[in-house]
Amino acid sequence: MTPEFKVDFDRGARIGLDEALFCESKTVDQISAILDAVKAKTGRMLLTRLDQSKYDTLLARRSAELDYDPLSRTAIVGEAHPARVAPPVAIVMAGTSDLPAGREAARTLAFAGGVYREFTDIGVAGLWRLLERIDEIRSFPIVIVAAGMDAALVSVLGGLVASVVIALPTSVGYGVARGGTTALRAALASCAPGISVVNIDNGYGAACAALRISHAVGAWQKSAERIE
Amino acid sequence: MTPEFKVDFDRGARIGLDEALFCESKTVDQISAILDAVKAKTGRMLLTRLDQSKYDTLLARRSAELDYDPLSRTAIVGEAHPARVAPPVAIVMAGTSDLPAGREAARTLAFAGGVYREFTDIGVAGLWRLLERIDEIRSFPIVIVAAGMDAALVSVLGGLVASVVIALPTSVGYGVARGGTTALRAALASCAPGISVVNIDNGYGAACAALRISHAVGAWQKSAERIE
Amino acid sequence: MTPEFKVDFDRGARIGLDEALFCESKTVDQISAILDAVKAKTGRMLLTRLDQSKYDTLLARRSAELDYDPLSRTAIVGEAHPARVAPPVAIVMAGTSDLPAGREAARTLAFAGGVYREFTDIGVAGLWRLLERIDEIRSFPIVIVAAGMDAALVSVLGGLVASVVIALPTSVGYGVARGGTTALRAALASCAPGISVVNIDNGYGAACAALRISHAVGAWQKSAERIE
Amino acid sequence: MTPEFKVDFDRGARIGLDEALFCESKTVDQISAILDAVKAKTGRMLLTRLDQSKYDTLLARRSAELDYDPLSRTAIVGEAHPARVAPPVAIVMAGTSDLPAGREAARTLAFAGGVYREFTDIGVAGLWRLLERIDEIRSFPIVIVAAGMDAALVSVLGGLVASVVIALPTSVGYGVARGGTTALRAALASCAPGISVVNIDNGYGAACAALRISHAVGAWQKSAERIE
Amino acid sequence: MTPEFKVDFDRGARIGLDEALFCESKTVDQISAILDAVKAKTGRMLLTRLDQSKYDTLLARRSAELDYDPLSRTAIVGEAHPARVAPPVAIVMAGTSDLPAGREAARTLAFAGGVYREFTDIGVAGLWRLLERIDEIRSFPIVIVAAGMDAALVSVLGGLVASVVIALPTSVGYGVARGGTTALRAALASCAPGISVVNIDNGYGAACAALRISHAVGAWQKSAERIE
Amino acid sequence: MTPEFKVDFDRGARIGLDEALFCESKTVDQISAILDAVKAKTGRMLLTRLDQSKYDTLLARRSAELDYDPLSRTAIVGEAHPARVAPPVAIVMAGTSDLPAGREAARTLAFAGGVYREFTDIGVAGLWRLLERIDEIRSFPIVIVAAGMDAALVSVLGGLVASVVIALPTSVGYGVARGGTTALRAALASCAPGISVVNIDNGYGAACAALRISHAVGAWQKSAERIE
Amino acid sequence: MTPEFKVDFDRGARIGLDEALFCESKTVDQISAILDAVKAKTGRMLLTRLDQSKYDTLLARRSAELDYDPLSRTAIVGEAHPARVAPPVAIVMAGTSDLPAGREAARTLAFAGGVYREFTDIGVAGLWRLLERIDEIRSFPIVIVAAGMDAALVSVLGGLVASVVIALPTSVGYGVARGGTTALRAALASCAPGISVVNIDNGYGAACAALRISHAVGAWQKSAERIE
Amino acid sequence: MTPEFKVDFDRGARIGLDEALFCESKTVDQISAILDAVKAKTGRMLLTRLDQSKYDTLLARRSAELDYDPLSRTAIVGEAHPARVAPPVAIVMAGTSDLPAGREAARTLAFAGGVYREFTDIGVAGLWRLLERIDEIRSFPIVIVAAGMDAALVSVLGGLVASVVIALPTSVGYGVARGGTTALRAALASCAPGISVVNIDNGYGAACAALRISHAVGAWQKSAERIE
Repeated sequence: MTPEFKVDFDRGARIGLDEALFCESKTVDQISAILDAVKAKTGRMLLTRLDQSKYDTLLARRSAELDYDPLSRTAIVGEAHPARVAPPVAIVMAGTSDLPAGREAARTLAFAGGVYREFTDIGVAGLWRLLERIDEIRSFPIVIVAAGMDAALVSVLGGLVASVVIALPTSVGYGVARGGTTALRAALASCAPGISVVNIDNGYGAACAALRISHAVGAWQKSAERIE
Repeated sequence: MTPEFKVDFDRGARIGLDEALFCESKTVDQISAILDAVKAKTGRMLLTRLDQSKYDTLLARRSAELDYDPLSRTAIVGEAHPARVAPPVAIVMAGTSDLPAGREAARTLAFAGGVYREFTDIGVAGLWRLLERIDEIRSFPIVIVAAGMDAALVSVLGGLVASVVIALPTSVGYGVARGGTTALRAALASCAPGISVVNIDNGYGAACAALRISHAVGAWQKSAERIE
Repeated sequence: MTPEFKVDFDRGARIGLDEALFCESKTVDQISAILDAVKAKTGRMLLTRLDQSKYDTLLARRSAELDYDPLSRTAIVGEAHPARVAPPVAIVMAGTSDLPAGREAARTLAFAGGVYREFTDIGVAGLWRLLERIDEIRSFPIVIVAAGMDAALVSVLGGLVASVVIALPTSVGYGVARGGTTALRAALASCAPGISVVNIDNGYGAACAALRISHAVGAWQKSAERIE
Repeated sequence: MTPEFKVDFDRGARIGLDEALFCESKTVDQISAILDAVKAKTGRMLLTRLDQSKYDTLLARRSAELDYDPLSRTAIVGEAHPARVAPPVAIVMAGTSDLPAGREAARTLAFAGGVYREFTDIGVAGLWRLLERIDEIRSFPIVIVAAGMDAALVSVLGGLVASVVIALPTSVGYGVARGGTTALRAALASCAPGISVVNIDNGYGAACAALRISHAVGAWQKSAERIE
Repeated sequence: MTPEFKVDFDRGARIGLDEALFCESKTVDQISAILDAVKAKTGRMLLTRLDQSKYDTLLARRSAELDYDPLSRTAIVGEAHPARVAPPVAIVMAGTSDLPAGREAARTLAFAGGVYREFTDIGVAGLWRLLERIDEIRSFPIVIVAAGMDAALVSVLGGLVASVVIALPTSVGYGVARGGTTALRAALASCAPGISVVNIDNGYGAACAALRISHAVGAWQKSAERIE
Repeated sequence: MTPEFKVDFDRGARIGLDEALFCESKTVDQISAILDAVKAKTGRMLLTRLDQSKYDTLLARRSAELDYDPLSRTAIVGEAHPARVAPPVAIVMAGTSDLPAGREAARTLAFAGGVYREFTDIGVAGLWRLLERIDEIRSFPIVIVAAGMDAALVSVLGGLVASVVIALPTSVGYGVARGGTTALRAALASCAPGISVVNIDNGYGAACAALRISHAVGAWQKSAERIE
Repeated sequence: MTPEFKVDFDRGARIGLDEALFCESKTVDQISAILDAVKAKTGRMLLTRLDQSKYDTLLARRSAELDYDPLSRTAIVGEAHPARVAPPVAIVMAGTSDLPAGREAARTLAFAGGVYREFTDIGVAGLWRLLERIDEIRSFPIVIVAAGMDAALVSVLGGLVASVVIALPTSVGYGVARGGTTALRAALASCAPGISVVNIDNGYGAACAALRISHAVGAWQKSAERIE
Repeated sequence: MTPEFKVDFDRGARIGLDEALFCESKTVDQISAILDAVKAKTGRMLLTRLDQSKYDTLLARRSAELDYDPLSRTAIVGEAHPARVAPPVAIVMAGTSDLPAGREAARTLAFAGGVYREFTDIGVAGLWRLLERIDEIRSFPIVIVAAGMDAALVSVLGGLVASVVIALPTSVGYGVARGGTTALRAALASCAPGISVVNIDNGYGAACAALRISHAVGAWQKSAERIE
């Protein structure tokens, strides 16, 4: 029988993004075995969807190895990548309840050596909270917008800034909002043009989309400079 | 066999709203027979969802009786109700494509003797279009908001005005917006508090919700005055 | 890093409705920190979706501050707003199981100083229960109808009263009723004209829709009187 | 290659219901060939979902054979079954738009020799229309209720009569009602106990459910009498 | 404030079916208070969806009053109705997992004094299990079929018996079957004619549909006899 | 600009199945250009979803090249593959309306040189039609079952034969059956074990699944023989 | 009352697949009673969906009888069938999280005496992991592909191998992937031809589909040989 | 009454993207009036979703003004923006049927003065078609992937290139693929990290997302250079 996992260690070199360990449907034994493999190779990995109880079990075995953040349910093993010059990312969150998704994006950027700032409680129900910070937000070339319910913040921001807007719909809400589907669909059907959308609560993916931009555009500029 | 219809002529007296004739799933023969019954009784009726081809067929039989508007697909038979003192209604439309639904609301109010003004092309993708008219809109105690796609206008307006906000989701859009379900769900899950929502493209229903407010609150005030 | 929340203290002045604290996806630490901010400013707030276990944890830290109601899962901090002259609201509930949603509406009105009465167990399966109280209900200019399953009560009431009817679909039921979607859709597709609908189990929103009516129409009448 | 069809001529003897010919997804050639087979055997068949244009094509080939009703899109070939003593069926329709479905039920009963009466335009938005006929309806042991939109009539009737109630949801309506799914789900989730439900617009099936009752219960009584 | 409940004691006289107490979304306090009211009036009630933990709590307060069945989660308070001459009901279950729903139907019939027999593990994957009992099943004028997954048993039985067939879809299964929606939709779209369908897991409703048949048809026969 | 298409001529060698031309969302110009490329290379291709009007337009340009079948909307260009020894396939269709999907499977097998027989009108509502042919069907090692509505035939057959059963759900039906989703879900949730399912109306795919079996198993046996 | 279960012991002889015991919606008492019946007859059975807690309860009563695997939640009672010559099956899993479904397939094959190999962590996000093993996989005439999220591995493999491809969508993922519906629909809509699909997480069914192939094709070859 | 439209001429300056005219739900009169306003102001506009019949009507009135492309249903009025130095965009299309969506993206980029190349018929069912062009595609910093059905190409590409990947799901396919929802959900649930997704068939939006990247990142670099 083949071993149960095979980490894609080549991924960072290939597409500029390390493989992260999605812990939701893995047992603690599987996670621990994968961490052993990581330790023997690159020594560094981001863990997502690691809930508190799995973390507690893991902690007993591997104390001091994991930098854990309960709000975003992420852990970092080893050193984060060194900071690099890259387009800074604004992470704008509609409400306190959107923090877990937004913070997952922040942790992913931190692990990758990216630059970002968090803006919390910027819901459009109190538009002044957005307008008083819009100039600051506008100065970021990339803006991740974490919002649940009707995700109206996505469209409002999309119409106000020339930045790249990455919509991160969250599962916040109840009734017809439940599960984040309404936020997702509203972001996809946004009346503002050029919004990029990721899966519900996928803070990791939103950050990766931002990282692709800096890698790819950076690489292109270097090649353009070589030609000149 | 009983006759195929029985108009609820008592409805106006009972709940302050005349029965309207929903023409979508009725044959021209059925519509014409009902109009005969109306003519013999109150002489006045609003027809909704009367498409151009049914209207054309009907016209040959009953020329000059119908005041028809093709954009909203409504017709008025007989005299509209006389204008009355009532809270004026702003009908705010996100885009040109929302006009059919918004105009159906306008025609319903016109038939009932209500006061209203239309505001078109107020989409949040260009927020300045809303902000330059917000003070005017705010002066209306009742605001109907017709919007499709993500219906973000509903939440933005709901957070800016103290007026009654009646969301009228429209079927404008494609892909995940198709059919208006996304606009409907976004309006129901709005982050702005106290939004009232009606069915997709139901301009008639939005106007009736507005009319209920003036009737009911008006009646209450009269009874309160009597007590004083 | 910015703080994790920013209460919209201006909302009451702007739209006549205080911001309420939606506790479902917030930690007890976040709730407590927000209450500290409230205490330092207006001293008064409504908390919704505060389940018993979060309340128990909170209680240990902030005894005597919270007026908690387990059925509606609401808490009131500080004094409710003083009672004011406003159109009274009937809260009509189809069954005992609809009490949590209906009571949330009641508590929201109580906090805002509104006038209301509750009518329980008025399901249409036993129509006499409705008919024996219909005259009393009819005397309220605003009627909130909380119903799950098929929400047939909404249409029946909507055809019997001239009052504003705010449908509050509830998640009561199983099978195809599960989650309240059937009740929601039935209310939106009601054969009775002019029904306003809010999200499933959104008693808070139904009450806010009622409050918008009294605020907005009241303001309009004052301005009309000034002109006269 | 086997022939393209094989009529279940044995069905009437086996379950008391003749096979009917569902024409929606059949070509005129196929329908005509099946009618030839019927002619050679029992000489009698009910055709459902036969739209006007297929009927017109068919008519050229088989004039005078078909008794066609355009409203219900049914045709009867040959003689209907002779009338028999059976529990009479009330077919109650919420509005004029529900006639096609209700009439399909009526035609199916007529073909089978059943007894029925149609009640039209009995929508609950004008409850008096129901209440003034309720005693008459109540006298029928079986009641088919054809209703679209929110199908509230189903629950109201179900709470007022001891008769068997067969809900026949129709595709009447728009927005969230579109396709009849809301009516169907509301009927299934009815707060009135013991409602039987059939597929959307399935007038044929509603009538068959009624026919099963008279056949089966009749047969049981005969056997019970034999035992006595 | 009005009391929280109002039992429809008149229902038995009106429609032949006592109101049952649906316990799923009620607190133990509410259930107990309703039982007090019942005790003071008719002394007899059926409780449905009473889970084991609620029952245990209730038991402490009201020992010996409740006849509880954990499989169907039903309890009977007081004496069941005396047995009466009525068409006997076969309750056919596709598998062991369909027992909770089927048994709820059985308990409802038992409470009402009805006659029934249970047939278990009659799935069509082993058709011989059905065929070896089909003659026995066929002798029942009313057949309730409880089946989950694809509910194919409904169509097979519906094509083999002339009896009334009441489909009771169950939530048994996983993946696309989850929640019983597939079984429900398959029963509604059955290729066998005249199938009556009730909500998912609604054993109570299936039994009530059967009871309506005996009541209504029985009453009709009596009146027919009087006329003769 | 690159050309608009690139036929996968290598596919037959690679996976044993030629690329077919799916015509539904292609213009006649595109189809014609692809046929030119085919003519210059292998000279042979299967076209699917070619509706009558596209075929008529195409015919004017390329007379005599296309062997067209309007029922299945397929065309064959060039010679079919020579017949080969392979496990014969039974194509069992529940009703006449399932012929288009079943025939698409037949035409695909014919093009590939496969052996098959069609069995029509084998619906379970008249089980005898199935039982009188079951021994014949059982003799085929592979059985494709085309059925719409509730697709009960899939489970019944699956429980009676040891053959490979490939369920081909069709879009036949209305109401909840509409679009074939109910048939698809019922086939996936079948109580009979080991059913393989393909997309709705995908007769081409069902045939390809059968072809994969003969290719792959045949190849394996040859290699096994070599080893012996 | 009939007993609560009736094992289909004839199934193995009839269709080549023993009945397995689906434990998800059965009580431990029911499972134990069925095992008693099995013990008295064939002595051998596969149990699926037996979660750890049910197993623990069962263990106390029937120690040493059950060969339990917690990852796949399967247990084997008695001896597995002896190994037979059959086309070997590759079980390819996209990620570690797909192991429970893939292992259920493996255990089913093991119980039936089949030949298989597992390939884990072959996700297309790192295509090299697939390409470096593709020749090995290609040598298996039957390939089961277990994948969640977008199930892209199904299409990639389907385009690379001539083997039978049985897609086994899993419920791995969150947001729009939740429940496995996206993986299921993607597999059904695959751009690769001839993919067979089973229900979400239905490893048992995928293995049975593979077993049908070896049984049926084997039987056909024997009969073909007899004829020669 | 206010005019029916108000073009957001400021949008280009504000967010770097001109407002485009979505023609799907507008009448020819409305489109023509808006073009008059454009002519009087900037003289330049992109029209999307302009179907052939609307274009033909428009042509009669405004000949020579419109550069129309029937495949993408776009028209350009006035001069396109001058070409600028920007990251070039690869538009990769899975099949010929995905051309309309991909071409809409191309036309949007052309109008905005962007640089792009189209790659057609790169479906993963024939992986060699992708692999033989992957190095070329990889050299583009931004890759738009237009794919319908299961959209597996998105994940495969996302795992092979470090470029920004913008998934453009298309409505190509039938059955469960119908409408593009499966492609959309598969793209959102992709196992490849950092995929940005836009609405179904939204070629315009995909291009705008690409344009936001060059604008925003370009602006950031300029400001970074100023600081240095």
